[in-house]
Amino acid sequence: MENKLLQQIKALVKDDLPLVSNLSNAAAVLANYENINWCGFYLVEGGSLYLGPFQGEPACTIIAKGRGVCGKAFEEKKTQIVKNVKKFKGHIACSTLSRSEIVVPIISGGEVKAVIDVDAPVINRFDDKDKEILEEIAGFLAKLFIEGGVKEHHNQEEKDNPVAAIEKLKEDYDL
Amino acid sequence: MENKLLQQIKALVKDDLPLVSNLSNAAAVLANYENINWCGFYLVEGGSLYLGPFQGEPACTIIAKGRGVCGKAFEEKKTQIVKNVKKFKGHIACSTLSRSEIVVPIISGGEVKAVIDVDAPVINRFDDKDKEILEEIAGFLAKLFIEGGVKEHHNQEEKDNPVAAIEKLKEDYDL
Repeated sequence: MENKLLQQIKALVKDDLPLVSNLSNAAAVLANYENINWCGFYLVEGGSLYLGPFQGEPACTIIAKGRGVCGKAFEEKKTQIVKNVKKFKGHIACSTLSRSEIVVPIISGGEVKAVIDVDAPVINRFDDKDKEILEEIAGFLAKLFIEGGVKEHHNQEEKDNPVAAIEKLKEDYDL
Repeated sequence: MENKLLQQIKALVKDDLPLVSNLSNAAAVLANYENINWCGFYLVEGGSLYLGPFQGEPACTIIAKGRGVCGKAFEEKKTQIVKNVKKFKGHIACSTLSRSEIVVPIISGGEVKAVIDVDAPVINRFDDKDKEILEEIAGFLAKLFIEGGVKEHHNQEEKDNPVAAIEKLKEDYDL
């Protein structure tokens, strides 16, 4: 099956844009995920996770390594699927609406650089198919963390006509 | 009238958090604005505006100074209210749903550091009251741009118990 979200993210993300621009648009694509109430990123900084771009209710800003589902994905460098967050000891709620959750680490150079976090308002929302989809997305986004920092934007065409550029993307990729 | 959005943003934003965490939560608060379809930030970097944290559909990633409503607010260092975006020459759509728009510059040290952009799906959504509300928010957020960069998070209580911290904020500020 085609990973439509990945195709949309690939269409929007560019390695000559600031990381924050790319992750903000990626979070907007993840928001197309059906039956979810929160989606976005936490970024590793100084050994902890800090809230990054997301869509949904205001969220926890800092999560220590090993704490909650995000902290566990960070510590174990492995995707975590929690079928029922009420049964997960030490769960950290992005939203009181959340009932199930998936967290996927973004790994670059063997290190977790960020995690993708998606919450659903229903129990048992996420399965191995979602794991596969989100791990593909995490694999693609990992390249953004290799160099980091802001580079000069060199797409003059897009700079000259940003409306046409985003409209074309939306048409081409059903955004 | 009390500026409820400002109170909510003040409760969430902390100057010892990364800028991206603060702006991501601020965008989530702005999403409580009634009858809008897009809200968020563009950040000044190398003389252009780059997409920052937002809530809504995927958006333009780069806007040159003077281009569109955001670029005009950047260039003129003044809030722009556009009653009907279809009549604004060179309008840059964050979303095809957008019909009216307000853009407020965040100014620190006399320089525009970012803009707040809010789009509505109806004509003539924003007036001087919205200008006042958002300019107060911009004035508060401006302090985040004075030093910049990531600082050590020193709120040990929140670090130890992030769930309790966000739940208390949500209760106290009706988030």
